[in-house]
Amino acid sequence: MTEPYTPLDPHYVERVQSSFARQQFMSFLGAKLVEIRPGYCEIHLPYKGELSQQHGYFHGGVIGTIADNAGGYAAYTLQSANSSVLTVEYKLNLLAPGDGELLIARGQVVKPGRTLTVCKSEIAVVKNGLEKLCAIAVVTLMQMAGKSDGPE
Amino acid sequence: MTEPYTPLDPHYVERVQSSFARQQFMSFLGAKLVEIRPGYCEIHLPYKGELSQQHGYFHGGVIGTIADNAGGYAAYTLQSANSSVLTVEYKLNLLAPGDGELLIARGQVVKPGRTLTVCKSEIAVVKNGLEKLCAIAVVTLMQMAGKSDGPE
Amino acid sequence: MTEPYTPLDPHYVERVQSSFARQQFMSFLGAKLVEIRPGYCEIHLPYKGELSQQHGYFHGGVIGTIADNAGGYAAYTLQSANSSVLTVEYKLNLLAPGDGELLIARGQVVKPGRTLTVCKSEIAVVKNGLEKLCAIAVVTLMQMAGKSDGPE
Amino acid sequence: MTEPYTPLDPHYVERVQSSFARQQFMSFLGAKLVEIRPGYCEIHLPYKGELSQQHGYFHGGVIGTIADNAGGYAAYTLQSANSSVLTVEYKLNLLAPGDGELLIARGQVVKPGRTLTVCKSEIAVVKNGLEKLCAIAVVTLMQMAGKSDGPE
Repeated sequence: MTEPYTPLDPHYVERVQSSFARQQFMSFLGAKLVEIRPGYCEIHLPYKGELSQQHGYFHGGVIGTIADNAGGYAAYTLQSANSSVLTVEYKLNLLAPGDGELLIARGQVVKPGRTLTVCKSEIAVVKNGLEKLCAIAVVTLMQMAGKSDGPE
Repeated sequence: MTEPYTPLDPHYVERVQSSFARQQFMSFLGAKLVEIRPGYCEIHLPYKGELSQQHGYFHGGVIGTIADNAGGYAAYTLQSANSSVLTVEYKLNLLAPGDGELLIARGQVVKPGRTLTVCKSEIAVVKNGLEKLCAIAVVTLMQMAGKSDGPE
Repeated sequence: MTEPYTPLDPHYVERVQSSFARQQFMSFLGAKLVEIRPGYCEIHLPYKGELSQQHGYFHGGVIGTIADNAGGYAAYTLQSANSSVLTVEYKLNLLAPGDGELLIARGQVVKPGRTLTVCKSEIAVVKNGLEKLCAIAVVTLMQMAGKSDGPE
Repeated sequence: MTEPYTPLDPHYVERVQSSFARQQFMSFLGAKLVEIRPGYCEIHLPYKGELSQQHGYFHGGVIGTIADNAGGYAAYTLQSANSSVLTVEYKLNLLAPGDGELLIARGQVVKPGRTLTVCKSEIAVVKNGLEKLCAIAVVTLMQMAGKSDGPE
């Protein structure tokens, strides 16, 4: 289902990195942008107690957040230079408890489009070095052409 | 679509409050449990810069988190005393930017069930005192009968 | 959550009716357009054995079809005269078996937009004259401005 | 993401075929069960005018129906002999018009479970012999242990 995509903007890596850096919520969580390729984005998030739900595992909202962001930045790699990316909707299925020391979200473009792009994200939790799929998401994103990706 | 539900557990308010208090992610965000009724839960979250996306608005993951939790605790009000609540999946549509000083999530049971409960959440953003709908969600939850709602 | 909407196109009723009539799948199923108001659409579908799943109830795909269409035509009432409506995605939660003599789908605009419109649909099944909620859906639709709503 | 699954019931092929055959809606549409493997199901549906939306393409509800069914029967291959499968919810993203002579839905188990199973479906449309991805879905299914899979 994946294809080699050609980005419109040669500076797509810097564009994604700088948008990610403007999201204060990412540094608050402790999330790191680990890999960016055309149509692909990978985010890592180490465990800390502040991210937990009632059983002490990663909270579902934390999992949803990086699932959404991995999909969003995968889409953003393929957008034009003067644009901003907006999440239209996402759907998250939680498959196993987020029990481990690290979350990895891998977002991938399924269908790019001028207006809408659809991505899927897979979220794994790593426990004692072993990766386990803990959630999948489908994310629909909108390209806001001509809209600045920072505060006005 | 709403009905007056009769909780199985007379101590449902304390049960929800204590589960919410065990979610460290809620206090990290600054979220407060404001209202609990049978089949209903309302959560408020004041703005701070750490919760923002690249334009300075509430991050979509923050909106998804309290949408999920409002639905989850609405379901949990109707569960039995010795049980834990688990999100199976949720779907969030973002309708307007989360631009304001406060988020309000209102979760409501649409269909209670012994195993699965379906809830809807509406999330409003308050700007200069005016409320605006910014997202809707549908959340499917599972009752884990006999499972402790805290760390083992 | 509902507001009185003002349609852009005074001939929105005829426009919706003629689009519905062009969908051969609707007459194949036996679905009827029963009510159209600005931002609202209601579809009825009487039972016949050909629409059933393995237990003899309305098939989930039939329920999804009229949920999608009720949302789509609710959105289409608010679109401009020279446009076509396209479903971007929908999410359906099945709440009770489709056991009865009639399905009723009520679609309603939650958030209209120039490009995207979000609707919710509630689907009830009527058995011995009594209505019961059997599914809810959230539907995202796209306005295709300048695109004919018929075959090219 | 796929693994070789071992079915609990050695007669899973016959069980799936006989459930599919009881769904009158499948023969009404003209859908055929083409391949069944543990955790996998493929359904084909040739075009006919009765299945079309207003532009003459496969209706989105038809696409959703076989997406749901391919996921459902993928899950059902792994269930126990005395059980019935129930769709809890599905989410469909339409990626391209259903313009062609044949639809192919491929459903695959992502996470099997005693109570809930999550599947993904990919739906391709074939035009002049060329396959194109036109939709993706995520389907959540419930195993109804001890429930007959036919009319009572």
